[in-house]
Amino acid sequence: MTQTGSRVGVWLIGARGAVATTAVVGASAMCAGLAEPTGCVTARAEFPDEHLPPLNTLVFGGHDLPGPALIERAQALVRDRALPAQLLEPCEKDLTAAEQEIREGYAGPMGGPRFTAGTSQAEVAGALAADIDDFRRRLGLARVVVVHVASTEPPVPPRAEHNDLEALERALPSVTDLLPPSSLYAYAALMAGCPYIDFTPSPGARLPALTALARRRELPLAGSDAKTGETLLQTALAPMFAARNLRVRAWSGTNLLGGGDGATLAAPGPAASKTLSKRRTLQQMVGDDIEGTVRIDCVPALGTWKTAWDHVAFDGFLGVRMSMQFTWQGCDCALAAPLVLDLARLTAAAHAAGLAGPLAPLAFFFKDPVDRPPADLADQYRDLRAFATALHAR
Amino acid sequence: MTQTGSRVGVWLIGARGAVATTAVVGASAMCAGLAEPTGCVTARAEFPDEHLPPLNTLVFGGHDLPGPALIERAQALVRDRALPAQLLEPCEKDLTAAEQEIREGYAGPMGGPRFTAGTSQAEVAGALAADIDDFRRRLGLARVVVVHVASTEPPVPPRAEHNDLEALERALPSVTDLLPPSSLYAYAALMAGCPYIDFTPSPGARLPALTALARRRELPLAGSDAKTGETLLQTALAPMFAARNLRVRAWSGTNLLGGGDGATLAAPGPAASKTLSKRRTLQQMVGDDIEGTVRIDCVPALGTWKTAWDHVAFDGFLGVRMSMQFTWQGCDCALAAPLVLDLARLTAAAHAAGLAGPLAPLAFFFKDPVDRPPADLADQYRDLRAFATALHAR
Amino acid sequence: MTQTGSRVGVWLIGARGAVATTAVVGASAMCAGLAEPTGCVTARAEFPDEHLPPLNTLVFGGHDLPGPALIERAQALVRDRALPAQLLEPCEKDLTAAEQEIREGYAGPMGGPRFTAGTSQAEVAGALAADIDDFRRRLGLARVVVVHVASTEPPVPPRAEHNDLEALERALPSVTDLLPPSSLYAYAALMAGCPYIDFTPSPGARLPALTALARRRELPLAGSDAKTGETLLQTALAPMFAARNLRVRAWSGTNLLGGGDGATLAAPGPAASKTLSKRRTLQQMVGDDIEGTVRIDCVPALGTWKTAWDHVAFDGFLGVRMSMQFTWQGCDCALAAPLVLDLARLTAAAHAAGLAGPLAPLAFFFKDPVDRPPADLADQYRDLRAFATALHAR
Amino acid sequence: MTQTGSRVGVWLIGARGAVATTAVVGASAMCAGLAEPTGCVTARAEFPDEHLPPLNTLVFGGHDLPGPALIERAQALVRDRALPAQLLEPCEKDLTAAEQEIREGYAGPMGGPRFTAGTSQAEVAGALAADIDDFRRRLGLARVVVVHVASTEPPVPPRAEHNDLEALERALPSVTDLLPPSSLYAYAALMAGCPYIDFTPSPGARLPALTALARRRELPLAGSDAKTGETLLQTALAPMFAARNLRVRAWSGTNLLGGGDGATLAAPGPAASKTLSKRRTLQQMVGDDIEGTVRIDCVPALGTWKTAWDHVAFDGFLGVRMSMQFTWQGCDCALAAPLVLDLARLTAAAHAAGLAGPLAPLAFFFKDPVDRPPADLADQYRDLRAFATALHAR
Repeated sequence: MTQTGSRVGVWLIGARGAVATTAVVGASAMCAGLAEPTGCVTARAEFPDEHLPPLNTLVFGGHDLPGPALIERAQALVRDRALPAQLLEPCEKDLTAAEQEIREGYAGPMGGPRFTAGTSQAEVAGALAADIDDFRRRLGLARVVVVHVASTEPPVPPRAEHNDLEALERALPSVTDLLPPSSLYAYAALMAGCPYIDFTPSPGARLPALTALARRRELPLAGSDAKTGETLLQTALAPMFAARNLRVRAWSGTNLLGGGDGATLAAPGPAASKTLSKRRTLQQMVGDDIEGTVRIDCVPALGTWKTAWDHVAFDGFLGVRMSMQFTWQGCDCALAAPLVLDLARLTAAAHAAGLAGPLAPLAFFFKDPVDRPPADLADQYRDLRAFATALHAR
Repeated sequence: MTQTGSRVGVWLIGARGAVATTAVVGASAMCAGLAEPTGCVTARAEFPDEHLPPLNTLVFGGHDLPGPALIERAQALVRDRALPAQLLEPCEKDLTAAEQEIREGYAGPMGGPRFTAGTSQAEVAGALAADIDDFRRRLGLARVVVVHVASTEPPVPPRAEHNDLEALERALPSVTDLLPPSSLYAYAALMAGCPYIDFTPSPGARLPALTALARRRELPLAGSDAKTGETLLQTALAPMFAARNLRVRAWSGTNLLGGGDGATLAAPGPAASKTLSKRRTLQQMVGDDIEGTVRIDCVPALGTWKTAWDHVAFDGFLGVRMSMQFTWQGCDCALAAPLVLDLARLTAAAHAAGLAGPLAPLAFFFKDPVDRPPADLADQYRDLRAFATALHAR
Repeated sequence: MTQTGSRVGVWLIGARGAVATTAVVGASAMCAGLAEPTGCVTARAEFPDEHLPPLNTLVFGGHDLPGPALIERAQALVRDRALPAQLLEPCEKDLTAAEQEIREGYAGPMGGPRFTAGTSQAEVAGALAADIDDFRRRLGLARVVVVHVASTEPPVPPRAEHNDLEALERALPSVTDLLPPSSLYAYAALMAGCPYIDFTPSPGARLPALTALARRRELPLAGSDAKTGETLLQTALAPMFAARNLRVRAWSGTNLLGGGDGATLAAPGPAASKTLSKRRTLQQMVGDDIEGTVRIDCVPALGTWKTAWDHVAFDGFLGVRMSMQFTWQGCDCALAAPLVLDLARLTAAAHAAGLAGPLAPLAFFFKDPVDRPPADLADQYRDLRAFATALHAR
Repeated sequence: MTQTGSRVGVWLIGARGAVATTAVVGASAMCAGLAEPTGCVTARAEFPDEHLPPLNTLVFGGHDLPGPALIERAQALVRDRALPAQLLEPCEKDLTAAEQEIREGYAGPMGGPRFTAGTSQAEVAGALAADIDDFRRRLGLARVVVVHVASTEPPVPPRAEHNDLEALERALPSVTDLLPPSSLYAYAALMAGCPYIDFTPSPGARLPALTALARRRELPLAGSDAKTGETLLQTALAPMFAARNLRVRAWSGTNLLGGGDGATLAAPGPAASKTLSKRRTLQQMVGDDIEGTVRIDCVPALGTWKTAWDHVAFDGFLGVRMSMQFTWQGCDCALAAPLVLDLARLTAAAHAAGLAGPLAPLAFFFKDPVDRPPADLADQYRDLRAFATALHAR
């Protein structure tokens, strides 16, 4: 173990969800030498990670609503073949430690056990920020990175205050529903002096007022919506069609998702927000006029697993019609969790290096990265490496 | 039409095969404004092609064994849905012109109508070179690029002369089977002062003695084995697994090929040579210890179409087993023909620029490129663009 | 050619659509010995078709809205690879003959060139029936079978008259929108003394009042919604899961349809009606509690082709989760047209044999057959053969 | 538990293999009410199993070569996700009981710990038969069914004695390699008065001399080569193409198998024997002239799982080319084990009913059933039900 002062906190919004649970088990197992860092980008032998905090300096905590404990969630993931049974026992101590650092979260304007229905959003934010601050102080952490891995929220109806930080701060003491929960968490994190990572498509810190707050407070942001399947493949494959001058006519996709996120994402609102950003990325790579629809369907029987099928109709030489299909079958939380660790390491280092505002070079990880960076996966990986190489703590 | 002196000859070995026929029809259709340059890499709007000979300066001829005329081959390709019916009539004039520039080729030591069984390989090479030279002089071409698009040959048993140019040249006047046909064509092309492109996995100019000859005569070489399906996808997808640190355990592939090439490639000899180079490329990208087999099966009912199915078994975070599959369904000659035009343009420009020996930056086009260049498609495309940008005729 | 008196008319609603055009070309080509009866069930060597009218006794006509002529539709299908180019010329005479027997149809209450907006549905029905009657008399046909192959209509809002023949007949002279077009066509066909085949999921003759009319007039009905892809495969595969006692947990499907029908079916209304009947069939075979969604997406780039991808999640022994996927890539009109000929032959023979009302033993052909017959394809085929064997004209 | 006299022994050749281990765990779990009979055909609610021995009357034992104990094999299967972790503890007692009934088997003419290299096959057979007889007597079993679930053997070179029972019996005392192990086990089983089930494609009881022995001793035989994936699907799907008169042009298949059987079956010998019987079945259903190859490839990374991909190229109406693909992803032992239980119950009942020789109505279970029965799965299921209904113990 490294010295207290050099440890880094990872504060997970949705701390008992499948992704968070898997990240905590995985970090524990890797530190104990019980698992390879498969799926961790920053752990590649060739990755320039000398300026990133080592894995064994990460300490976990977070917010969540009342529910089964981390260890019970881990047991359920074993039954779902998302975690190997033999890791449960050796990782139990670290799971218990993380469990003790979970504080009750914010369920939205309807209220919950901790924050009753009438509580102002300013008051909620204050309490959430205090939880994070307490975590940092008590454990003597050099810094804390906040990662939103809770269920996806529907797109948020636009409000003038979302674009105007002053107006937002004036309004918060007297409102209960101005910000969606993900954005209120982002606000609290920034107020607590912490970088914030939008791991899901929820609004989070993507509201202009919150981006402004991050810049004012000199805090880095990362996001949004980690790519772990269909979009990952699309950003690897679409550049091939473009480079070969093959004309993509239609790109259609079906995503079968189980578990909690399947139900959330297949609902018309979230599905719309997710499929829109997927479509934009594709168009950027192969042209604006492609046909096709991306579907997200919930299949609870799949558990935490997902299956994506994509069909690409393209024209070859002289207009001859051809096609390509792929099927991706993966465990959602096992695909996401190592990226949580990667992003925590990278964003912590960016904070240490004094970077502020959205970190465009992290586009490699996201479906909907800020600032319309290159959409090609290879370009994104090149940019990521360059970014990591250039990081030096001040 | 451009001036005589600036025209470039494209001499096709296998001039009435499906790939050659499609290339001639396609060049004609595009010059007449009847078809988009879909599939032509060098015709992308963003591609730096200012130093390449324009499409309408290319003139076609070649060697082939006696058989149906180009126009009949084109009609058969229409029935097989590999060429659009409406292009036949407008392109007929150009097909006839190319037909008149086809000379009878070399069938190997067994002999054929033109070269009887006992003819020495030196004599055959002289006659083949004279055909090419006559084509260049008669039509007043600036240069002629020779492209081997005939059926794949089995791997060639090693002979000492293959590695020693002096020994090879001493031996040729008295042998009938020292070089496989593709290599004898390469020898003849180089003797005629022409760049040579190994479009297939046949030995061609890959024998060290012939590479030495190209350097001595200051001629560029390109090759070998154009990638138009499974391998193209592999070089786009495998880097994704590597960049994400996902551990590929097994990569298995089945290729269903119709037509002539299916039968040739599914034969144990050629299949072995083709699958070996495919496997090497994969290992370079995702590791030496991957399991899996690549199969090539002949299915005549598919005509000139092919279907490739690949299955990738990989480990994710904490060793959780996941998988990916793809199916690629394309028309083989429609995938290959535009690359013939790309390679002819690029190699002609390289010749004009005075480059000699194997052109490593053309790896983007090949399954088995020389000099172990990057295997990632994105890196190969970057190198190709840099190469094209740097070309200037002396 | 057979004698006038033994010829059978096939009156197609949607007579210039892709399915109708393909059926006319196909019947012509087969009669001329230019094509095998591939896809025609009743033409199998082992099928008991001795009581069915031979293919060369069928005569085609129909209703359609103004549009390009049959021969132009056939040319477009050749460009879309749905018809072989070489059949156009030999079949032109028969296409022209059918074209001359096409009468302008009914576009619905909005009116069209022939039936203006205020025309009562009784008047329209009378005119449509007169067209059919004229066709029969002029050509001296033994009988005429009417087949609805026009675009799918949305589900129809229930009306009391749909269930009560007397009320319907009282109302028709004074209404313009009581029956959807498909049902008005069915009414006209029955009034003209013709059997009626619901080849699409449109309401057609499935309204109870029309079924009653068919019984009263002693006319057979067949339908509805021919199965030509995903559902066909489902009825072949689902019994396998059942017989092996494998528990299907979820069956998800995505249908990519091009052309006109893709746009129609992907619209929420028709999609709902189509996917509902597909789901019912699956539940009948593998249980009521299966998860999964069936999607229909329009991809115009596919032309008259369609691709269906199905994913089946099932439990094996001791609850081990397994999966199966299939992809079906077919030409919609080429799959449907031979069934039009089969159904015309079978329904004509049923009429000759004096059968009346819905013909349940034709379930083999339909996604949504009447009377909840066996859903297993093998059982349906057995029933179809038994039905054909038992047919004897009175 | 039922009375001693009514218990039935199931003697497994390869008693510690994955299939046998899964069968023992599964029978135990179902008897304890811990698992549904998913995958057990004879346990379907609608299946006529009143004449079959109940599951809780089965007692397990068998032959195997020295190796890890059943409980260790079960633990390995849990790690490979082929058995649910929670069943291990409750089934441990039954696993231990079965372990105690495992006797050392016969490894072939090379010899092994029990039977040294020079031991005559008559002597080996006598010892094996004595093991089975001892099992029956000691446990007071009504009868014992022997099931061969050991690794597949290569095809056996023909010997005159294989066709002539008298000659075989004369030769056995003086030979060490006349019969392959599977056939020597079959001989021993029959000599011990037990029915024999060829669950694999090994020669087993399929040699004419052994079939004659079964008839002479009035013992039933079942086999061979249980269908659990690709062939199962083929026998469900091929009848669809036939019934619809769609012309299958090519049927190609790739089977990726992990574990022990993958290595065995991918070896040229066994692969040849397995693919031959698969091809015969397909031809019986869709015609003798189909193209395509069936491949078996070993991918150890798949563990006990397998993936089959099939591609069907077929012609539709007017020769339009279409295609279908499927992918089957299953756990081999979980697919096979319930069929072992089904076959044990059915064959035991057939024995009780006095049936002798090959049981053709069990074709539903096999890739290569005796007597060229119907190949269509639906017909086979109908025959199986009729057979089960007709069974009555004398």
